[in-house]
Amino acid sequence: MTAALLNSLVTRLSPPPIPAVQAWGKSYGGGRGPLIDLSQAVPGYPPHPDMLQWLGEAGASLAYTNYGPIEGEDSLRTAYAAHVSDLYGAKIDAANIHITSGCNQAFISTAMAVAAAGDRVLMSDPYYFNHETTLSMLGIKTGFVACDSANGFVPTIKALERALTPDVRALALVTPNNPTGAVYPPERLEAIFDICRRNGIWLILDETYRDFLPEGSERPHGLLGRKDWQDNLVQLYSFSKSFCIPGHRLGALTAGENVVEEVAKIMDNLQICAPRAAQGAVARALPALTEWRAGNRHEIDLRARALREVMTDLGGWKLEAIGAYFAFVRHPFEDRPSTEVAEQLAKQAGIISIPGEYFGAGHTRFLRFAFANADAETIRQLRHRMVDFSL
Amino acid sequence: MTAALLNSLVTRLSPPPIPAVQAWGKSYGGGRGPLIDLSQAVPGYPPHPDMLQWLGEAGASLAYTNYGPIEGEDSLRTAYAAHVSDLYGAKIDAANIHITSGCNQAFISTAMAVAAAGDRVLMSDPYYFNHETTLSMLGIKTGFVACDSANGFVPTIKALERALTPDVRALALVTPNNPTGAVYPPERLEAIFDICRRNGIWLILDETYRDFLPEGSERPHGLLGRKDWQDNLVQLYSFSKSFCIPGHRLGALTAGENVVEEVAKIMDNLQICAPRAAQGAVARALPALTEWRAGNRHEIDLRARALREVMTDLGGWKLEAIGAYFAFVRHPFEDRPSTEVAEQLAKQAGIISIPGEYFGAGHTRFLRFAFANADAETIRQLRHRMVDFSL
Repeated sequence: MTAALLNSLVTRLSPPPIPAVQAWGKSYGGGRGPLIDLSQAVPGYPPHPDMLQWLGEAGASLAYTNYGPIEGEDSLRTAYAAHVSDLYGAKIDAANIHITSGCNQAFISTAMAVAAAGDRVLMSDPYYFNHETTLSMLGIKTGFVACDSANGFVPTIKALERALTPDVRALALVTPNNPTGAVYPPERLEAIFDICRRNGIWLILDETYRDFLPEGSERPHGLLGRKDWQDNLVQLYSFSKSFCIPGHRLGALTAGENVVEEVAKIMDNLQICAPRAAQGAVARALPALTEWRAGNRHEIDLRARALREVMTDLGGWKLEAIGAYFAFVRHPFEDRPSTEVAEQLAKQAGIISIPGEYFGAGHTRFLRFAFANADAETIRQLRHRMVDFSL
Repeated sequence: MTAALLNSLVTRLSPPPIPAVQAWGKSYGGGRGPLIDLSQAVPGYPPHPDMLQWLGEAGASLAYTNYGPIEGEDSLRTAYAAHVSDLYGAKIDAANIHITSGCNQAFISTAMAVAAAGDRVLMSDPYYFNHETTLSMLGIKTGFVACDSANGFVPTIKALERALTPDVRALALVTPNNPTGAVYPPERLEAIFDICRRNGIWLILDETYRDFLPEGSERPHGLLGRKDWQDNLVQLYSFSKSFCIPGHRLGALTAGENVVEEVAKIMDNLQICAPRAAQGAVARALPALTEWRAGNRHEIDLRARALREVMTDLGGWKLEAIGAYFAFVRHPFEDRPSTEVAEQLAKQAGIISIPGEYFGAGHTRFLRFAFANADAETIRQLRHRMVDFSL
């Protein structure tokens, strides 16, 4: 009798980081006040009451019980295409949209559509850990575009060119960035896209956090208005953050129709179609909750400002980057790894953050704060906890 | 400017078969009465009114809006573990359960947990097409255990032994079978499992249709009661058929805790967690709707009997296998491929079925009828349409 083997590409992955980090919070005694959870990017306020009502109506409806179209409900594809067209000043059709069960699924579907085991996909370093683990478990090689605090963690053209090798099939970037919060300027994105086109590789642009750009920001970029953008661009999005419904698992990708067709084959194997009831509800919410979403953007802006204040002259702590949702914070403990700092910060000070190392081995001097999870008043409580914190 | 490349493992897959087949139905003129859709396996009756109510309540609840546990809601894992324990006379814990977004996702998660690109996974031939396309797109090699009508499409030990090669990591079987409907006898499953153990490979047992075994059937098998079953067995299930909620995308796998841990890493990358609201609702439904589900089993049984009657002495048509949900039907057109027969049967006679070829190139003499989709009265209308049908 022989026990069967597991796939070493999977067994060698670390366990998912969020549950591990949240476990540290469970050892916090409460001495510094209530736990402040800045780990997972979750909206720290509830969905709009209408959103809940529509989710309830759709859930109870016979209309969504059967299988639906693989690519997504027509209603949501149409509503989202109109939204994207408006936001980017581009002409995007429903046929360019594929609905997925969250943005991680939009990423893995896209990764599989453009790369097989043995091909290479580039990411920024620091990277979003699920992008790295997704590629690794598929046997897709990874490569990294080094980003540093001197450049505000925005990838430079030089760093991209250094990372390009002949086996690269795609470059996956996240803007506003996870983990750093850095917002990539439109001109830089255009220049990066030009390099992708010249090299015949895909730019996979994850814009999960775009609804939380600072107020008054210009359009994120003009790539969807470029001629033949479909030949080199796939753009990813999540409805989770903006509508406060991550538990309903809904994301989308915007791509050429031929890519949508290939993704449909993959989605059919992954799960046939994204859950339908939430699609019906979000199709209603997308045009209806525009003002409410703008209000949340303002609220997140207030939180970012509160964090900037908190971090001013805060001992050896330094805010190296901040943007929509996330801040990348340098900790003062030169000789200590970020895992130790984050663990003790959770256990002693009741602040849960994610160690920089989880986003790449070189980032042990940093912690990621998902500051959008906490309101400004809570954020202001960070200051005395961090000032008093020592290792 | 160079258009970027797509993954040839994906581009070479055929488009998903269900939409293609249903398109034939759209060309049917209606001359033989209403369209009879026996293509996709979907319950031909609505969910229980309580199920809809619970889905609505869960959808409207704030409790399910945030991210949930990767492995699934505790409530559903516990309820389902109790159900599995009861059904198989085994001791299954909640820790042995991983909830997924439908059974295709349970399959791909399991496949990725046990095999990487270049490894081999065996299937029956005929096979469930999504199993084959899932493995192919991952670069996992496929191998086949030949099944034939002489053996009622149940895999024989001899055929399995012929298919075993040193690179095989798992054998994936579906019982009751898709596409043939064949119910694998417990003794055969035990013997197959013994071979898997001796060879150190996984048995992945997809039992999506087990709730529709003929009334009075014995327990499907005793594998979950075997010592150390966790070393070689992963069992898959879907809540879609039994609760008539495929649009809510919910499935589950039962495995050793170490496998559940690896699947959690994969699920985190695939979509973090299955949609939560439906999990909450099914956790309520699982113990509550036992009688209703038994009634449906009786109903499907009536439909199977109706189809047996219909197919008796029906020209050159022959019912080669029938079981829970599906029948595998030999068509009388010796020199015509099953794709042509199925297309014309849809267009002329208004009967949508799936060509045997879609389940393996050798099955061009067959059509799959998902008879459970239609009530007995509708099934009786097949007879005159099929008698009159010619090519």
